[in-house]
Amino acid sequence: MDFLVRIDVSRAYDLPSEERADLIAREQARGRELHAEGVLRNIWRVPGTRANVGIWSTLDADALEDALTSLPIRPYAEIDVTALATHAMVRQDPGAWT
Amino acid sequence: MDFLVRIDVSRAYDLPSEERADLIAREQARGRELHAEGVLRNIWRVPGTRANVGIWSTLDADALEDALTSLPIRPYAEIDVTALATHAMVRQDPGAWT
Amino acid sequence: MDFLVRIDVSRAYDLPSEERADLIAREQARGRELHAEGVLRNIWRVPGTRANVGIWSTLDADALEDALTSLPIRPYAEIDVTALATHAMVRQDPGAWT
Amino acid sequence: MDFLVRIDVSRAYDLPSEERADLIAREQARGRELHAEGVLRNIWRVPGTRANVGIWSTLDADALEDALTSLPIRPYAEIDVTALATHAMVRQDPGAWT
Amino acid sequence: MDFLVRIDVSRAYDLPSEERADLIAREQARGRELHAEGVLRNIWRVPGTRANVGIWSTLDADALEDALTSLPIRPYAEIDVTALATHAMVRQDPGAWT
Amino acid sequence: MDFLVRIDVSRAYDLPSEERADLIAREQARGRELHAEGVLRNIWRVPGTRANVGIWSTLDADALEDALTSLPIRPYAEIDVTALATHAMVRQDPGAWT
Amino acid sequence: MDFLVRIDVSRAYDLPSEERADLIAREQARGRELHAEGVLRNIWRVPGTRANVGIWSTLDADALEDALTSLPIRPYAEIDVTALATHAMVRQDPGAWT
Amino acid sequence: MDFLVRIDVSRAYDLPSEERADLIAREQARGRELHAEGVLRNIWRVPGTRANVGIWSTLDADALEDALTSLPIRPYAEIDVTALATHAMVRQDPGAWT
Amino acid sequence: MDFLVRIDVSRAYDLPSEERADLIAREQARGRELHAEGVLRNIWRVPGTRANVGIWSTLDADALEDALTSLPIRPYAEIDVTALATHAMVRQDPGAWT
Amino acid sequence: MDFLVRIDVSRAYDLPSEERADLIAREQARGRELHAEGVLRNIWRVPGTRANVGIWSTLDADALEDALTSLPIRPYAEIDVTALATHAMVRQDPGAWT
Repeated sequence: MDFLVRIDVSRAYDLPSEERADLIAREQARGRELHAEGVLRNIWRVPGTRANVGIWSTLDADALEDALTSLPIRPYAEIDVTALATHAMVRQDPGAWT
Repeated sequence: MDFLVRIDVSRAYDLPSEERADLIAREQARGRELHAEGVLRNIWRVPGTRANVGIWSTLDADALEDALTSLPIRPYAEIDVTALATHAMVRQDPGAWT
Repeated sequence: MDFLVRIDVSRAYDLPSEERADLIAREQARGRELHAEGVLRNIWRVPGTRANVGIWSTLDADALEDALTSLPIRPYAEIDVTALATHAMVRQDPGAWT
Repeated sequence: MDFLVRIDVSRAYDLPSEERADLIAREQARGRELHAEGVLRNIWRVPGTRANVGIWSTLDADALEDALTSLPIRPYAEIDVTALATHAMVRQDPGAWT
Repeated sequence: MDFLVRIDVSRAYDLPSEERADLIAREQARGRELHAEGVLRNIWRVPGTRANVGIWSTLDADALEDALTSLPIRPYAEIDVTALATHAMVRQDPGAWT
Repeated sequence: MDFLVRIDVSRAYDLPSEERADLIAREQARGRELHAEGVLRNIWRVPGTRANVGIWSTLDADALEDALTSLPIRPYAEIDVTALATHAMVRQDPGAWT
Repeated sequence: MDFLVRIDVSRAYDLPSEERADLIAREQARGRELHAEGVLRNIWRVPGTRANVGIWSTLDADALEDALTSLPIRPYAEIDVTALATHAMVRQDPGAWT
Repeated sequence: MDFLVRIDVSRAYDLPSEERADLIAREQARGRELHAEGVLRNIWRVPGTRANVGIWSTLDADALEDALTSLPIRPYAEIDVTALATHAMVRQDPGAWT
Repeated sequence: MDFLVRIDVSRAYDLPSEERADLIAREQARGRELHAEGVLRNIWRVPGTRANVGIWSTLDADALEDALTSLPIRPYAEIDVTALATHAMVRQDPGAWT
Repeated sequence: MDFLVRIDVSRAYDLPSEERADLIAREQARGRELHAEGVLRNIWRVPGTRANVGIWSTLDADALEDALTSLPIRPYAEIDVTALATHAMVRQDPGAWT
């Protein structure tokens, strides 16, 4: 099941720069792991903000909660989750939309 | 997976009363079916409004979309869906919370 | 009478981790008590947030206020309460909806 | 239990004036009944709007829903309900606040 | 003239508990005085919040401002004021609504 | 007592132009009367909108409600009222601010 | 350049059902074309609503405007566009994120 | 003096297409006139919407109101105006920013 | 040209009381100067808040910005500005509205 | 491609005045560079606020993100970006609108 997830990490920018750089490095390492597992399918930066928007795929909301809780940046993050259902076009011809 | 679903059917009250009464009867029949299937677990009226709030349980958002689309009142409904994850207390002792 | 209650405890995450862990342990102990008393009927985590959503049952708003005030996490909580009335379907056939 | 209830009846003003005048007369007759029963304790006009604000007292949200549903103007009304708990000052000395 | 006044005192809860307890005691003493003077006619707690909702009666907005400024808790309060006009039902038969 | 009043009359622009022109003429005639009585002290157009912003002076909210109800355009108006108290500078030296 | 685009087509549901069915068929045909051209990269249904959320890729906002204007359902659509920048993780290793 | 002006003309799209096409032609003719006069300095389409955003330059708000009122599409437009002051950088070196 | 200006100075109330008292004294002195210059035409207190609402008259937004920047309280102020155009009634008979 | 960008730098005003003056000087130097490069085409102050509104021109959102990240004030800025498409009038006659 897919979710549209917006993660704003403005609060992480109140950290001393070294601590923040280390946190972001660990966060991106975890991000690459989640991408490799197929959980974090795609991610973008919202220009001008400290927020990203991503498409996450997990079995259900519990699995999504676990994935989000595993993010090093979680304590500094404001997260907004929208559940997504498969669109009719994609249901009709899944192969065309992989 | 559970969802908190708010359904506002104000627009149905613009229908002629007989048509509306028939629609609500068919809607409640469908509601009882969904409850019997364990999809619509519980439902309340938000006092003073034409909206109800319910706890829905489906495999995922696709199954929820199908259940909501099956509602006779769907064309007149404004629906807001919040995905819900299992709370830590319930994960620790599911039996106590059935 | 039932209430839909959303409790956001983000502010508790500014506490030192040990103090927070102790607070959450006491909070969950109190939560299990309230559940056993039939006050806190069900509770979910809103994925990605520090908020839970629950169905609370008390005699009236005063009893709800007392229950909420008894929560160890109360000083750190932003709480939003929506009064709920019994839905027509449930009034017609309470037994089917317990 | 008390509720703060705001009722906006703008939509009633789309009715032909005679029909509206009759509706408002029936509505006020019902209002006086509810006041006499101690349900509608007090009511004010929000200046410049078609909305009133009132203090309603009922056993619980179900009783409030029944009272609101009994209003002739109900089909034209947008209603917002806030549950109210007894203030500490009033709990300490109820007699002083009747 | 009546006003619907919502006073949120969340910020007072950042004070050390002793200081807060003293402040609340002085605040409630002042509240009882204002009630005795007919200024603070009625007051409720909004369940789950640090806010109260009250019906205040003063000559005009200047007198309301003076009454609100006299509250010991004023420096910690977020206050929202709505002017209220007498409802048509009450104008027609004031005696029935005292 | 003064009030800041915003009146949006967009809905009047759905009227046939002749009917609207007559309504606006009657409305402005009433406006000049209210100004002459010292009730409507000053009024501005919010550029680009069908709304005006004005400073109204009446004994209290009841008198304001009566004045607003007397406006020919009232049935088409969305009105927002903010109660205003005298500023400290004006209290200290009313003569300088007439 | 990518855009997050939410398209709400509630107004299309006021059309007679046959006309609507034809419109949706033409809309989905156009959707498949845009997908084949790489413009509409992915699309989901927001459960319970008449809205979809999609990831669109065009040279710039002008090309996006042209693509959106080409949608048969455009006259009935409320569209919200968020520009998206490439995330740092994807910039560092584009190949891993195709 | 400059203003940031957003003009949403969604309502014009409820007109029959011929009438709308004529209106838009007259509107764009007037737009070119205002641009030639230096009043409408620049204008953009907000992608996916029926709104434009423009930089308007007039002596003051009265002149802006007159210019906006002269737009053929005015009766169908929702307009939002933000007053703009000259930025410090531009004040320091106006020539560099013409 | 006139502007409706709302200035909220809540943040000034976090200052030590002596420093705040001095700031408010300097602020009111500056306010009287601006009133004498015809810039600050009128000002009110929004009851229950730390905000004032005023009618300001300057040549344009640049002159308004300079006047607002000259306020001692500026660093602690949240300011909201609405440009105002002359109302049709006032244009027709300016003398009646001075 | 053009963007409407609002940058609020209120948080920079919490810095010691000397540090802030230096930051603003570096910020304006960078602003002049971006203007010279044709990236920052025009900029205004929103009167009464710490925010500016500007028209930015870059290849796409990635280039905009890089330009915004290059601003010395970025760590203190709340930025809101709206993508802009070329208006029909400007497409028809680009030369008239440079």
